[in-house]
Amino acid sequence: MQDPSVEKDRHGESPLTIGFIGTGIMGAPMAARLADVGHRVQAWNRTPDKLTPLQAAGVVAARSPEAAAHDADVVIVMLSAGPVCDEILLGETGIIAAMRPGSCLVVMSSIPVDTAKGQAEAASPHGIGYLDAPVSGGERGAIEGTLAIMVGGEASVFERHRPLLATLGRPTHVGPAGSGQLAKLANQMIVANTIATVAEALLLVERGGADPAQVRQALMGGFADSTVLDVHGRRMLEESFVPGGAAKWQYKDTQTAMAQIARLSLDLPMSRQGDALFGDMLEHGDGDLDHSALIRELRRRNGMPVD
Amino acid sequence: MQDPSVEKDRHGESPLTIGFIGTGIMGAPMAARLADVGHRVQAWNRTPDKLTPLQAAGVVAARSPEAAAHDADVVIVMLSAGPVCDEILLGETGIIAAMRPGSCLVVMSSIPVDTAKGQAEAASPHGIGYLDAPVSGGERGAIEGTLAIMVGGEASVFERHRPLLATLGRPTHVGPAGSGQLAKLANQMIVANTIATVAEALLLVERGGADPAQVRQALMGGFADSTVLDVHGRRMLEESFVPGGAAKWQYKDTQTAMAQIARLSLDLPMSRQGDALFGDMLEHGDGDLDHSALIRELRRRNGMPVD
Repeated sequence: MQDPSVEKDRHGESPLTIGFIGTGIMGAPMAARLADVGHRVQAWNRTPDKLTPLQAAGVVAARSPEAAAHDADVVIVMLSAGPVCDEILLGETGIIAAMRPGSCLVVMSSIPVDTAKGQAEAASPHGIGYLDAPVSGGERGAIEGTLAIMVGGEASVFERHRPLLATLGRPTHVGPAGSGQLAKLANQMIVANTIATVAEALLLVERGGADPAQVRQALMGGFADSTVLDVHGRRMLEESFVPGGAAKWQYKDTQTAMAQIARLSLDLPMSRQGDALFGDMLEHGDGDLDHSALIRELRRRNGMPVD
Repeated sequence: MQDPSVEKDRHGESPLTIGFIGTGIMGAPMAARLADVGHRVQAWNRTPDKLTPLQAAGVVAARSPEAAAHDADVVIVMLSAGPVCDEILLGETGIIAAMRPGSCLVVMSSIPVDTAKGQAEAASPHGIGYLDAPVSGGERGAIEGTLAIMVGGEASVFERHRPLLATLGRPTHVGPAGSGQLAKLANQMIVANTIATVAEALLLVERGGADPAQVRQALMGGFADSTVLDVHGRRMLEESFVPGGAAKWQYKDTQTAMAQIARLSLDLPMSRQGDALFGDMLEHGDGDLDHSALIRELRRRNGMPVD
């Protein structure tokens, strides 16, 4: 085993041994990027055949999560949900028990704030650093290495791993463990509410007899401008609802946000309303469409034609 | 009197005679820009001393609205509100009666949709073209000639006056008369709702123990990005609430939007909620602060310190 103090110094400068857990739509291109810049990446995925194409990119396929974590400087987790994540990380046969002191666990999945705090507490007695670092930017951001990465954890641990995270996108330290997840919730809440708002604005001008496409054009570049007006506004006008971000995942996120808002005894009425609209949308069977299809829910609500 | 067909051909190419009604914060720099590019601008303002500085820019001070409109190719109106606007435009001594056939009335004030439609109908029998062309971008946009200009009216009338409007900013034709006002309402609705949404997101992360300034930074460039997150988000973090756009004017606009939404028998819940929050804010005495101070209302609502 290497001396941890020596280890610290070479982080981000020399190649690292990286355990990568979860090589799905997001994880696979991220693992490939890390291998591409010269790190030794040992990846594990529940469905092993997803590892095969990665081996061409220089990623080593691990037989188990523990094998991926073995002797790793950093273990990155990109699994789909909180409970799965805990199951693989915690306990006697979990990844944390398999990691060596002085290494660092970076959980990039979107999980509840308290789950992240619990993982940080579980890692600490083993001498393992912890960062929660959920991302925004989708598959494209993962492929291009342009993800927005919202990072919670100790500032010194963040600084040590900043060059590594910069390989994957734009990392920002936002506070102690759990803060990355909190920032991700804020992100998803803003996206949900802005989609709902843009949809309402487009319906207002349509019903009033103006041209919604021209109105969107006129508003871009002004105070009403947003990435949602640009990207999702276009999808609404073109009725092009192949996800992108499926409405059911958007609703999962607004539900997680509402739970966190309640836990903090907050009353945030815009977000409550946005969440309720996505709930109605799923109830009416549109959960597999892109989240911009929320405009269909507002059409239904107002007796306007949908299909 | 000139032949109207000859008149049409030289619009936008040669200098025009422009009547300019209302030289307040927005109107004054707009009138100055028009004079600056060589048009003959005859301006009127209710408070005549506001015309004095404009005379240095080559603007001619008119004694009355009728004098400003006399023999004008185009009359531009930039008054503060709908009723004042109707009072000066309509009736036997109004501006429309003083304008010559073949000329065009361009109302750039923010007024109700139906008021704009009524003005278009009043102008038509006199052979006068009509455009409603409200703007977004504030005093700075007026000075720099970068206003977003949302234009309703006949397409041919718009095309004829596009070069003139391009002197003031970025004109977009959005539909028949009244559509410019509809687009402006959509703009204001989006700004109001986005301010409320960004405020809620910043309070969530603050209460949860993350750093709101860092979270804003992390979210910029992602799907949650917007001009409001940038401009108004910064004001919220710095508690810098000198307007900018006063909350009372924002509320006037969301109230006008709500009236239009009701007239069209629409139910748009996000916008209803945004309007209600600005109403609460005014009730608690914050109407003269910048609209980004809505975060104070959400603090009050959640028992968080305000001052």
